[in-house]
Amino acid sequence: MKLTILFGGASFEHEISIVSAITLKEKLSSAKLTFIFCDTDHTFYLIDAAKMKAKTFSSGEYKKMPQLQLAQGCFTQKTLFSKTEYDSVVLNLIHGADGEDGTIASLLDFYAVDYIGPRSDACTFSYDKRYTKYLCEALGVKSVKYEVLHKNEVNKITIAYPIIIKPARLGSSIGVSIVKEESELDYALDVAFEFDDTVIVEPFLEGVKEYNLAGYCANNEMHFSIVEEPHKEEFLDFEKKYMDFSRSEQVLGADISEELTVRLKSNFEKVYDRLFEGALIRCDFFVYHDEVLLNEINPIPGSMANYLFEDFASAIEALSHSLPKKKQIKSNYEYIHSISKAKGK
Amino acid sequence: MKLTILFGGASFEHEISIVSAITLKEKLSSAKLTFIFCDTDHTFYLIDAAKMKAKTFSSGEYKKMPQLQLAQGCFTQKTLFSKTEYDSVVLNLIHGADGEDGTIASLLDFYAVDYIGPRSDACTFSYDKRYTKYLCEALGVKSVKYEVLHKNEVNKITIAYPIIIKPARLGSSIGVSIVKEESELDYALDVAFEFDDTVIVEPFLEGVKEYNLAGYCANNEMHFSIVEEPHKEEFLDFEKKYMDFSRSEQVLGADISEELTVRLKSNFEKVYDRLFEGALIRCDFFVYHDEVLLNEINPIPGSMANYLFEDFASAIEALSHSLPKKKQIKSNYEYIHSISKAKGK
Repeated sequence: MKLTILFGGASFEHEISIVSAITLKEKLSSAKLTFIFCDTDHTFYLIDAAKMKAKTFSSGEYKKMPQLQLAQGCFTQKTLFSKTEYDSVVLNLIHGADGEDGTIASLLDFYAVDYIGPRSDACTFSYDKRYTKYLCEALGVKSVKYEVLHKNEVNKITIAYPIIIKPARLGSSIGVSIVKEESELDYALDVAFEFDDTVIVEPFLEGVKEYNLAGYCANNEMHFSIVEEPHKEEFLDFEKKYMDFSRSEQVLGADISEELTVRLKSNFEKVYDRLFEGALIRCDFFVYHDEVLLNEINPIPGSMANYLFEDFASAIEALSHSLPKKKQIKSNYEYIHSISKAKGK
Repeated sequence: MKLTILFGGASFEHEISIVSAITLKEKLSSAKLTFIFCDTDHTFYLIDAAKMKAKTFSSGEYKKMPQLQLAQGCFTQKTLFSKTEYDSVVLNLIHGADGEDGTIASLLDFYAVDYIGPRSDACTFSYDKRYTKYLCEALGVKSVKYEVLHKNEVNKITIAYPIIIKPARLGSSIGVSIVKEESELDYALDVAFEFDDTVIVEPFLEGVKEYNLAGYCANNEMHFSIVEEPHKEEFLDFEKKYMDFSRSEQVLGADISEELTVRLKSNFEKVYDRLFEGALIRCDFFVYHDEVLLNEINPIPGSMANYLFEDFASAIEALSHSLPKKKQIKSNYEYIHSISKAKGK
């Protein structure tokens, strides 16, 4: 398998993406990998596999590596006298802004570069937590109730404490707080509004069970990972999640009933259906009072949730052969011709 | 005012976009306009204003004009010894695919080019008629009831005839049919499925009134056009709509009560709120049994609905000064530094 790992991006999760890419270098070592880094200025660099270390990026050393441009069907490296093309399937591994908000998807679609990852519409419905709620509502998938607050708006929260405050458009727990009483609210809102002008408020559910499930569609069939019950802390903060993104050891399945597994998969499938084709996603569910609730869709999960799959490399390979194709639209200028004729011109 | 009109695109509405651009050349004659054409191969060309005629495109003559590339902050024209930058605000005038599906929005966002037009999320909710329904549902805006049918799926339509069949993701009435009885259904579905794998089915409402309203937000304030009652035919087919896109004469306002005008504006505002900032959009409403229903959001209306505004050039100028800014995100590699430290490397 040949694969291009595209990582970095102008995002609060920029560093997490680097960690993910380094992890995948190891997990996909049987593949012929090309590494393309997008820096926060949106310049693309070709990174030598031997240089895939955190320091290459934090030190700025990457800037000495060859710059690439997007062209129809590939990334290209141009010098005065030559042009090298990198045209293997891209794995979009840019977490957060750029990667998960539809920007990279559209860019690759425009340049007709095949890629593993969520398409633009799928990004809209997973990147912004409000729109995930809209999707759940429309599909009949249950989720936690919520309220929306905009920056500089009067506090109109009616949900009882304890509550969770989340920036609408960030992953990896950045800017998220649990607020136990009103006196802690202003600080939590200030933190969240540093990252987004829109905030989601949810009740904090005590005693909730959490389960993660990843999956993808290949050859017109859904393929699921094992179900994981993530290590339970009150919630994972950014640094813990950060370490989490470098996970590469396969985990054990959660000790849950077959019946619950089926319910989780059925909810996953409702969400994934067509919208997420081309992507391997992870859905994080809550089980609360015996109800399955969708908490979050991760359309580009940390290190692609490799640790949930028995044979991760084969999963990626199968997916790379099942990518949705964009309809090619040409114009024969039929209407302009017919109008010009009608006008006698 | 300096403005770049970006038009064309790989879309079934490619030719309509050309007609729109030619119309705007006339309507914005007081501005310093640059014309950039995106052909169906996704190559950008700089078009001499004197060549802004339908024939330039239908004859392929545009291919002799200078090619442009996207770069940070501008379009550039590169020759061996020089580089010319075109950095005025872009008006995204690409109707249908590319322009209205979020592709161009993401492309311009990635390259930090300022533009008038819907952002990526706004495109998702207006381009696909299903997602417009999701939005209406979430915002409490009424719309016509609907069912969804996918290609190769068993017919499970329960809405009583007459019904309307529409491809989920096309504007300008392309592929739309009114089906009066079951015998006409298969043909109508075949037509619609030529353009999209997903189809929307709605009841055909006899005696419905139709009203169009355009508007935009500038200086933190909504600005509305007059309300138009479009010429009533059973519905506008593609060729009639096509001619419609070249409209440039201001129309008279519909003869409706102040109370109805207020209701239309209030529904418009609910839809527009934040999501459509940066865009001048047209909402097409139905009034049926005294209820206001949202029929369609046109995030890049034909010839920008110029004919609905008293002073269209000033509207565009005000909007060009009120564009949403994307947050600049840089990385200080704080986490990588702290982890490297912890590891003693």
